[in-house]
Amino acid sequence: MFVLVNLKAYPADPVSVAEAAATVDGTAGVDVAVAPQAADIARVAQTGAETWAQHVSPVSHGSHTGSTLAESVAANGAVGTLINHSERRLTLADIDDSIAAADRAGLETVVCANTPEQIAAVAALGPDAVAVEPPELIGTGTPVSQADPEIVEDAVTAAEAVDPAVDVYCGAGISTGEDLVAAEELGADGVLLASGVAKADDPQTALEDLVGQY
Amino acid sequence: MFVLVNLKAYPADPVSVAEAAATVDGTAGVDVAVAPQAADIARVAQTGAETWAQHVSPVSHGSHTGSTLAESVAANGAVGTLINHSERRLTLADIDDSIAAADRAGLETVVCANTPEQIAAVAALGPDAVAVEPPELIGTGTPVSQADPEIVEDAVTAAEAVDPAVDVYCGAGISTGEDLVAAEELGADGVLLASGVAKADDPQTALEDLVGQY
Amino acid sequence: MFVLVNLKAYPADPVSVAEAAATVDGTAGVDVAVAPQAADIARVAQTGAETWAQHVSPVSHGSHTGSTLAESVAANGAVGTLINHSERRLTLADIDDSIAAADRAGLETVVCANTPEQIAAVAALGPDAVAVEPPELIGTGTPVSQADPEIVEDAVTAAEAVDPAVDVYCGAGISTGEDLVAAEELGADGVLLASGVAKADDPQTALEDLVGQY
Amino acid sequence: MFVLVNLKAYPADPVSVAEAAATVDGTAGVDVAVAPQAADIARVAQTGAETWAQHVSPVSHGSHTGSTLAESVAANGAVGTLINHSERRLTLADIDDSIAAADRAGLETVVCANTPEQIAAVAALGPDAVAVEPPELIGTGTPVSQADPEIVEDAVTAAEAVDPAVDVYCGAGISTGEDLVAAEELGADGVLLASGVAKADDPQTALEDLVGQY
Repeated sequence: MFVLVNLKAYPADPVSVAEAAATVDGTAGVDVAVAPQAADIARVAQTGAETWAQHVSPVSHGSHTGSTLAESVAANGAVGTLINHSERRLTLADIDDSIAAADRAGLETVVCANTPEQIAAVAALGPDAVAVEPPELIGTGTPVSQADPEIVEDAVTAAEAVDPAVDVYCGAGISTGEDLVAAEELGADGVLLASGVAKADDPQTALEDLVGQY
Repeated sequence: MFVLVNLKAYPADPVSVAEAAATVDGTAGVDVAVAPQAADIARVAQTGAETWAQHVSPVSHGSHTGSTLAESVAANGAVGTLINHSERRLTLADIDDSIAAADRAGLETVVCANTPEQIAAVAALGPDAVAVEPPELIGTGTPVSQADPEIVEDAVTAAEAVDPAVDVYCGAGISTGEDLVAAEELGADGVLLASGVAKADDPQTALEDLVGQY
Repeated sequence: MFVLVNLKAYPADPVSVAEAAATVDGTAGVDVAVAPQAADIARVAQTGAETWAQHVSPVSHGSHTGSTLAESVAANGAVGTLINHSERRLTLADIDDSIAAADRAGLETVVCANTPEQIAAVAALGPDAVAVEPPELIGTGTPVSQADPEIVEDAVTAAEAVDPAVDVYCGAGISTGEDLVAAEELGADGVLLASGVAKADDPQTALEDLVGQY
Repeated sequence: MFVLVNLKAYPADPVSVAEAAATVDGTAGVDVAVAPQAADIARVAQTGAETWAQHVSPVSHGSHTGSTLAESVAANGAVGTLINHSERRLTLADIDDSIAAADRAGLETVVCANTPEQIAAVAALGPDAVAVEPPELIGTGTPVSQADPEIVEDAVTAAEAVDPAVDVYCGAGISTGEDLVAAEELGADGVLLASGVAKADDPQTALEDLVGQY
């Protein structure tokens, strides 16, 4: 089971969360990675935690001021990237080009989408994984696996039909080991979580509980 | 005179360019800063070079996946940021909010615009500096100070009329010390340059020539 | 006093509202215009009501699928256009180009902005008028003239300092003749309103009351 | 065979082109429709020509200034709409919502994409048809059916695999009846064309030749 902790633009210290992630990583068969701000990638990667980008731009080397170049996030230690998170939506052509950019830089790709239909759409673009996250549940504390289990099952079915090699993650409202078990039972290969760890009083304890209850 | 070397998404090694910038910084009264990819800011700042961001998002701490948080670029060593570069245009409201975000994080702000009228517009938002860059000259090797000297003079006049405390830079096609002198004679307080250094065979020599000819 | 009724994407019949606007237009020195969906401009203009566009694209004739060409809205009877409404924000360069497009097509321009500082910014681009609308008050029913009178006065002062020829309108929450009087006393030359008329049970009566109480 | 003439923001008189389209419509089994600017839809529909929108916004009735409401284009006579043209790209979620908006308003939908992979992606969202248009060939006069026949065949195969009920069109560089025959032989159910007719000296003759040679 894969757990990606998205630090968004939260005030949590990215290095502390990364150190916590590195500590629990591998426990009970759970792989834990952390996706900090691009500027924090180098420091986070130095902790030994598996480090991801939150986004890469649909560009290769060139005149692209203010872009997030896949090669640069990789050079600083990232091994994967989210693409098309609901807080950073891209055009279809740009999703495609961002996957290509990540592939060139050797980054794993997880493309987010809101619904099973959109999951089928992004699975057709050849990412390593897709993640279904109903935007209305993000940050609520109500896990998608409980509020809308069908959306996870349907996403798994939809992605499978398009390309069985594509992993399926789910996200929104996930914070406990129980949520992790529920996600797996619905067919998910991993989860995206954010506030449940990044806004916890003690992210280390939150991650230990998550993995311990799994 | 201030010189900001924008590394965009160029393949140049950001650390090498930063080391070169740190070497020439202060020579002949020229301050040289480097604006790398966000992911490279930490490594660039560790060279001792004055480090800038190419962009910051119009947000504060919160749920903003894939954003460039001003506080994060500052925490990794940046001391200033470009805003609204012609390759990363923002809505007017977002320019305003990005200036506010940079101010909160203690970053200096240079807001770019295409024409003297737009320079007057962005000067009204209270940045530390504005930079006029005619998009059609960017990357051409023909310096704006030669191709369109009136645009620089008019930008200086326009900014002065709105807020005399705002510095005025110019950019596009600038690569030599002669261009630097010309920019200063037109009333500019500094220049933005990019390919002239970042795509030079030897950025160190390019920077030494730039400052040496000034 | 100028009153622009923005029909947004409301379900109200645009022709009925336009007929009502044409009826009250000119009463008590109030000019009333209507801004329908682009597709409704031709039918609305045929009522004889003064017709505006809600937006024009920053383009001239060419390959721009899905654009709103200033020449097309003018050819169908529009005489003016909103630009940069808070529900349709543009980059600074696109605001500038949209004003130029509207000028070429002979359309009057009202550029919207959120704050007095942003009003100063857009006034520098040479529109016919600017409109200050605090986004948080839009659609609330609480008139900006009551909730935040200083923002209107400061917008008037800010625009005056940049270009005395630019008219200043205000919007957000305005629905009654009393609001109209208050706006005028704060220095505004007109108002933008939307739901107060377009979502009224009887737009004709709403407009008659508005003008009658003025 | 379906032929959609996209008038973009061209200076061609939309009513003249529509009258020409109405004249040739049905000849030799070719259905000809015209997609004008939104503001021109009412006048174009009055000619009796089959009228399409170039774009609809991913919204329903509400506070959406400057949007292109599907219900409004339908109320003025449009019977279908392009979505996600390469000159008006949308986020994946907005493509989905625009299809839904068009469906609610009773409009047929053609979703554009650049490559067979992206065609598979948009076919998964349930449109009536998809259209593959390599952006680099748009406006060149070199027909996609000749420059890159595999892209059309692969798009047909990709869409078929996802949903056999979805029609497949192709576009870019198409202007003659020969191109139409070639497109059909590659498996396409129709074509999008633009400059070949809209920028022709005589659109009527261009359309007659197109249909006559078919």
